Amino acid sequence: MKVLENVNVALKANVYFDGKVTSRAIYVGGQKQTIGVVLPGEYEFSTTQPEQMQVTSGSFEVLLPGESQWQTFAEGSTFNLDADVSFSIRATDVAEYLCSYL
Amino acid sequence: MKVLENVNVALKANVYFDGKVTSRAIYVGGQKQTIGVVLPGEYEFSTTQPEQMQVTSGSFEVLLPGESQWQTFAEGSTFNLDADVSFSIRATDVAEYLCSYL
Repeated sequence: MKVLENVNVALKANVYFDGKVTSRAIYVGGQKQTIGVVLPGEYEFSTTQPEQMQVTSGSFEVLLPGESQWQTFAEGSTFNLDADVSFSIRATDVAEYLCSYL
Repeated sequence: MKVLENVNVALKANVYFDGKVTSRAIYVGGQKQTIGVVLPGEYEFSTTQPEQMQVTSGSFEVLLPGESQWQTFAEGSTFNLDADVSFSIRATDVAEYLCSYL
C-alpha cells in the first residue's frame, strides 16, 4: 500500500455533496495537494487554479471542460485542468483521487 | 484548522458500508491512527485492539459495548473501547473521528 511520507494533514475533511465527495488537504514540502474519496454519483466541480487529477483507486468518467463526450480514466491515469473551469466526474463505484495544484 | 504534522498517510482510504464510512491510516512516529468520515446512518464496528475514538467534527451517538442506552459524544470528546468488542455509531450529519490504538 502506497504511503505518502512526511506530510502534514488537515485533521478535518472537506465535505462536498452531503459527504458523497470528501477530501483531505495534505501539505508536501509546503505544497498543497488533496486526497479524495468519491461515492457513486455525478458531480460538477470548478477549479480556481490549474490542477492535475490522478485516479488513485477505481475509475472515473470525466466530462472535461468544453467536451461533450465523457472519458474514462482508470486507476493511475491523470488529467489536467486549467484555472477557472468547470468539469464533471461520474463514478459508479467508490473511487479515489489525488489532486495536485500546478 | 488543525493540521497533523510530519505524518505518513496511506494513499488509499479504507472504505466501509459502501463508502458511508471512510477512513485513512496515518502513521505518527510509527504509531498508527486512523482519521475517518462518517455519513449519516448507523454502523456497527468491532475492535481487534484497545482504541480511543475522538470526535473531531460534528457529533456521534454511540452505543458502547454492553450498554443499552445511546450516548452522545460531541466534537472534542473521546471514548475508549476494549479489544474484541462491538459498538455502534449513529450520525445524523456528517461527522469525523480520529482513532488511536492504545
